[in-house]
Amino acid sequence: MRPTSPIGLHRVVDPPGVLPQAARTLDPDPAIGSDEVRIRVEALNLDAASYRQLEQAHGGDGAAVRAAVLAIVAERGKMQNPVTGSGGMLVGVVEEVGPASTLGLTPGDRVASLVSLSLTPLRIEDGLARWDGRSERVPCDGTAILFGRSIAAVLPDDLPADLAMSVFDVCGAPALVARVVADRIDRGLASVVAVIGGAGKSGSLALAAARANGATRTIGVVPVEAEAALLKGADLADAVALADARDPVALAEAVGAAGGPADVTVVCVDVPGCEHGAILATAEGGVVVFFSMATSFTAAALGAEGLAADVTMLVGNGYVPGHAAYALEVLRGSPGARALFEARLARETTQP
Amino acid sequence: MRPTSPIGLHRVVDPPGVLPQAARTLDPDPAIGSDEVRIRVEALNLDAASYRQLEQAHGGDGAAVRAAVLAIVAERGKMQNPVTGSGGMLVGVVEEVGPASTLGLTPGDRVASLVSLSLTPLRIEDGLARWDGRSERVPCDGTAILFGRSIAAVLPDDLPADLAMSVFDVCGAPALVARVVADRIDRGLASVVAVIGGAGKSGSLALAAARANGATRTIGVVPVEAEAALLKGADLADAVALADARDPVALAEAVGAAGGPADVTVVCVDVPGCEHGAILATAEGGVVVFFSMATSFTAAALGAEGLAADVTMLVGNGYVPGHAAYALEVLRGSPGARALFEARLARETTQP
Repeated sequence: MRPTSPIGLHRVVDPPGVLPQAARTLDPDPAIGSDEVRIRVEALNLDAASYRQLEQAHGGDGAAVRAAVLAIVAERGKMQNPVTGSGGMLVGVVEEVGPASTLGLTPGDRVASLVSLSLTPLRIEDGLARWDGRSERVPCDGTAILFGRSIAAVLPDDLPADLAMSVFDVCGAPALVARVVADRIDRGLASVVAVIGGAGKSGSLALAAARANGATRTIGVVPVEAEAALLKGADLADAVALADARDPVALAEAVGAAGGPADVTVVCVDVPGCEHGAILATAEGGVVVFFSMATSFTAAALGAEGLAADVTMLVGNGYVPGHAAYALEVLRGSPGARALFEARLARETTQP
Repeated sequence: MRPTSPIGLHRVVDPPGVLPQAARTLDPDPAIGSDEVRIRVEALNLDAASYRQLEQAHGGDGAAVRAAVLAIVAERGKMQNPVTGSGGMLVGVVEEVGPASTLGLTPGDRVASLVSLSLTPLRIEDGLARWDGRSERVPCDGTAILFGRSIAAVLPDDLPADLAMSVFDVCGAPALVARVVADRIDRGLASVVAVIGGAGKSGSLALAAARANGATRTIGVVPVEAEAALLKGADLADAVALADARDPVALAEAVGAAGGPADVTVVCVDVPGCEHGAILATAEGGVVVFFSMATSFTAAALGAEGLAADVTMLVGNGYVPGHAAYALEVLRGSPGARALFEARLARETTQP
């Protein structure tokens, strides 16, 4: 077997010496090294920002989007959107486990990868024939490789696979929010939590996790009435506020009117331009957690400075130990969040 | 006095409802509102990117650059480069303080603004007659307005103005590093601190602040031998390591060899591509603080996830209350850092 690096350096083709996530191209050869694992892929879940970019770039033409994804994977050996830099995740069945692998997997395990597609060697074998190019969920057949250092979650027995995957896609959010809120509560700090994009996947779990960890008040912010209705129906937040997150003044006012400013503001929307609003909506000494892949680092850094805002700003790390299991726990404990996820899956399935 | 918004919304002319930094035009009327402060401007310091753009656009013709800046300010009511979007800062003397101002300023105070010119209402009164248009430093006479929420640092009596301003330019870094390190020490957590770009302005103050707050060990990482010599001469770090910060594997190895991994890694270099290295160089449970404006949000977020790295990542906020005064304190307490700053100023003055 070929010598391997636990972080997959041996799979990097171009340019040499960079990490797989930064590489232009990876080697998706299905033959595994001693600490690697090969997955027989069943489906990809494209990151929301990536899918939106592809959809907009191709005017919603499903066939064109499908062709674009095939071309990216063929050229790069991985599914990393060249514009957004983001990837997504995959689900499949463990096919072969290298003798030195420490991931605790067994051939036959049905797993979701929890490291991004943006660094996962991938080979597609069916031309994505079963995908219409019109949603983030991509049924496919192919192989993917997990490195020595990786994260894969075995799919649970008590939940449908697509629901579990849908949760895994965003499991960093509830875990990090739980950590931030619990830490503040431990230290006796105020904890009004506002989630921008509260009706979405990561947003709804973030709200549930905030509440589960003792948030003083939870506020879900949504851009349109339909999402406000969904969120109210799910009973996930103490207050629901309507605002365009790209309008900083409107967002801050809406959060204020709903019981803010927030001590913890969680940004879970994927549109650019939400940094100033999130900062403005946050109380002095508060925390802003950015999960959106559309977040601009400079807008956040300069925005806080320009507003003389004493806030701690976190780059939302998609990984917290135990995050996958924790997110499933949050879902199981929150009928409202579960309903939102299930409704979303139903819409995706029935969309023309 | 006119009703005001603490973030200056009342000064926004076009388009209405946006923040001053995002506005096309501001109202620079010198008559102040109750929480505002008027500064009699002595000099502007154009942001480097802004000046470079103007210089290139006008082929180095100083008179043309001067005319361009006058036109921008006359049209926009602020000095925000329409191409780069950046501003800079100013130095002046406090002329009038509104009765509701909480900035703690007194007429006669000589101050540097620490919020960008890109959001500061400005009126120039001398046609920039004393500026040759050939450097970023713009002697001028005019008025500028600080909002209720703003940041201005009083220039110290005991340090040359250009040295103080040079420190103010990067004062967010030592303040936030101090806060992070002190918090970890308080909680009994390990605190090996690595500063990537340790010989630069923000890096040197970050090293000094880390040491002053009880860091277990400080490691300064630099890319070239000349900077290593500077840093060793300044006696700012317990260890100096040589590595290209854009090479994650090399960076992590260099930090390891110098006494790492780091519990707190501070990124103070302005070149893109340092995210993965910073993460890889950081121990589990550690903190990465990104100050570089070249930081990519997605590279940081996806990088940590892809490496299964349990690290807290902070967007380096340029503002921490008291940061300007604190940075001057750090400089005064660190002959090594001061020597680096003075040498740098001397080089800038003698450059053709």
